Amino acid sequence: MTDSIIEPRAVSGFPEWLPEEEAEFQRLLGIVKKGFETFGFAPIETPAAELLEVLASKGEINKQIYTLARPNAAEEERETDMALHFDLTVPLARYVAMNFDKLSFPFRRYQIQKVWRGERPQKGRFREFYQCDIDVIGHESLDPLNDAEIPAVIYGIFTKMQIGAFVIRVSNRKILQGILLEFATPAEIAMEALRIVDRLPKIGADAVQHDLETGCGLPSELAAHIIEIAGISGRGADVMERLEKNNHSHPLYLEGAEELKLLVTNLAALGVPDDAFEVDLSITRGLDYYTGTVYETFLRDYSQLGSICSGGRYDNLASHFTTQHLPGVGISIGLTRLFSNLLDAGIVKPSAKSPSKVLVSVMDRARLKDYFSAATELRHAGIPTEVFLENKRFKAQIKYADKKGIPLVLIAGETEFATGTWLLKDMRNGIQTSISRKELVTCVSSLL
Amino acid sequence: MTDSIIEPRAVSGFPEWLPEEEAEFQRLLGIVKKGFETFGFAPIETPAAELLEVLASKGEINKQIYTLARPNAAEEERETDMALHFDLTVPLARYVAMNFDKLSFPFRRYQIQKVWRGERPQKGRFREFYQCDIDVIGHESLDPLNDAEIPAVIYGIFTKMQIGAFVIRVSNRKILQGILLEFATPAEIAMEALRIVDRLPKIGADAVQHDLETGCGLPSELAAHIIEIAGISGRGADVMERLEKNNHSHPLYLEGAEELKLLVTNLAALGVPDDAFEVDLSITRGLDYYTGTVYETFLRDYSQLGSICSGGRYDNLASHFTTQHLPGVGISIGLTRLFSNLLDAGIVKPSAKSPSKVLVSVMDRARLKDYFSAATELRHAGIPTEVFLENKRFKAQIKYADKKGIPLVLIAGETEFATGTWLLKDMRNGIQTSISRKELVTCVSSLL
Repeated sequence: MTDSIIEPRAVSGFPEWLPEEEAEFQRLLGIVKKGFETFGFAPIETPAAELLEVLASKGEINKQIYTLARPNAAEEERETDMALHFDLTVPLARYVAMNFDKLSFPFRRYQIQKVWRGERPQKGRFREFYQCDIDVIGHESLDPLNDAEIPAVIYGIFTKMQIGAFVIRVSNRKILQGILLEFATPAEIAMEALRIVDRLPKIGADAVQHDLETGCGLPSELAAHIIEIAGISGRGADVMERLEKNNHSHPLYLEGAEELKLLVTNLAALGVPDDAFEVDLSITRGLDYYTGTVYETFLRDYSQLGSICSGGRYDNLASHFTTQHLPGVGISIGLTRLFSNLLDAGIVKPSAKSPSKVLVSVMDRARLKDYFSAATELRHAGIPTEVFLENKRFKAQIKYADKKGIPLVLIAGETEFATGTWLLKDMRNGIQTSISRKELVTCVSSLL
Repeated sequence: MTDSIIEPRAVSGFPEWLPEEEAEFQRLLGIVKKGFETFGFAPIETPAAELLEVLASKGEINKQIYTLARPNAAEEERETDMALHFDLTVPLARYVAMNFDKLSFPFRRYQIQKVWRGERPQKGRFREFYQCDIDVIGHESLDPLNDAEIPAVIYGIFTKMQIGAFVIRVSNRKILQGILLEFATPAEIAMEALRIVDRLPKIGADAVQHDLETGCGLPSELAAHIIEIAGISGRGADVMERLEKNNHSHPLYLEGAEELKLLVTNLAALGVPDDAFEVDLSITRGLDYYTGTVYETFLRDYSQLGSICSGGRYDNLASHFTTQHLPGVGISIGLTRLFSNLLDAGIVKPSAKSPSKVLVSVMDRARLKDYFSAATELRHAGIPTEVFLENKRFKAQIKYADKKGIPLVLIAGETEFATGTWLLKDMRNGIQTSISRKELVTCVSSLL
């Protein structure tokens, strides 16, 4: 039976990595996971697919959504009522509503999963990517202290990643909203004004002034004042001082300022240094979903990447699924895009092609049991170890270790078996050490 | 704006767990991952979706496959040419063929990912589930020693899981095949005969004898002899002895017996004890895909679960995608099904609802900075820690720790701040210990 060859192609926009890249991706993923757990966030996972009516809870099914079907199944089993999730927020809302009675609140969960969006394929834009999300969900209420703690989670993770200097920018939407309401702006127009202010860094003050006046009908002076306030940014204490001078009195404004102050005040105790943090009142995050604190995180040397970790406070997680009032605060890291960019920029580098730390070379296949025993000892000690199993010359074995990035090669031939003194070749510097077979694990450990 | 409430339902057959169950699932997943890496298998990950022509490489698209589409997109963007993978073998074949020049052989990779199959929903049958696969892929050839090492990987993982006694059953398809060929059975009929023998444990010897005679046209004596050989099972050395007595001479038979012997001989050196291992010549694994060694693994006390880890040697991984000859050996653990059954049987138990090891209780909100500093110290030491952030009484805080399974509560009020001696309440036994605030990390660590 001869088969015709099919060209092996992957779907465009669905990234996959070589083993040495994947190992590095997994390392970063591990840092994120550990970072989340260090703050007491518990893992959950939801299915890749949800019912269409669940995904459509916030509005229409948009054209980026991938629907599922089994076109070759019997008619009643074609299952055209589901689709892949496009974010982890709708699934979380559904999960919390469904399991409300079994969860303890405040519910602190993290979720690290792939999401899918049918975007137009182009470089660096993915249609399948990992999102790493945390949320704290309260029942009825959720203390603003939760917002204050989030920058510490962000700081911990990106510090551990060692991907260069970064800055966490924070604002509180209530501040600008309060000012707008104080000047009798209707709520919907205030919302629209925030969306316009969100574009301040992109289109500049003049364009925003124009849009606020013509698009929202704001008086010229109010528009100018909003732009002035939105222009405030800097170290926490300085910003708070400038805000206090403004003498605004709307309760929403005061609440926003108070929440921001709570955040700024506790940063040092939470281990976040001043230079990794900035208040930036121009951040409004466009979406109506967020109601108070908002976060964005930028790499100082790669600000063109945009925010690498964003989120904020919202008023009610699951209003579409339950009558329970569930306020929350959360952030999301788009790890696939970040990783891809860091790799391109050379900030993270591919790892070894193998997790093995030791290659046990085989010089005499009649002594296989001895080689396997040595490998078993190392493995029991938790040291990833390979035995070279192909029937090839020693030179090929060394070449294999070199290509795969395995740091140590264990060597034993006739002399070594006779004396009980084996050799350990360090591939990183070429140095060959004699070691006692009996102290194998100790000797290997000391070299790793 | 009032929205109507949508009933929060998940898709049937797509499992999800409560946080305390998910934590346990993640623990088992971690054991599998570590078990694979200990033997030098490197992680790779392929997209959830493949092109339909890739998935169909082995034949027609079957009705279990979930195809993807974007029905609401513009006509040219509807993307109806892809589907979710139903296993990890076809994606691996595509990946290896695509990246052939960049990989080093033998290529040892593991893959832990979800796969999707549109099965009829019923209890314990999942449509979305995790597969944990390893494969060693050779270029041109792959030494049978690779087959011999696989039971050690299996043994390591299920021993660490502590899910009771298990047995790894091994056979080699070449043995029965060789006997059939020796008696001039045409190759296709020999293959069909192996498929019939695979049902021996289910339908019994009489039915198999009948099917071999009528279905394959085997002479009655040959059929009986095949059943006799297939009936051989037991400790490795015993089986090898019985096989040698048979005096079969077909090269395939001799090769199979030799490979099996290699495996049996090296088990002890690889750390696999006799009682976890059995040769069972009735195992043929039905599929034509496997050409030599085959593995199945059973829990001794829950054999009704069927094999919890299976696999085998195959002749060519990616013949549909490349002209390179890529023999391999691999196994797969269906972790979702295993976990679900272990949970139902009470063999694994839900974990704590939170990864937190310490809850820092807040008795005086004016001293928040002190509580946050304590938490920061613990977190820097890698100890998952939560501060109780809601404005509630001490009793509610203790109740929260109890409900979430957080073992330690750190307590400080006026007296404690004055003396620098804080309290640590162990929720597991109720014991309250005075500790020096300065030695916080040491004290907490000693109690965990």
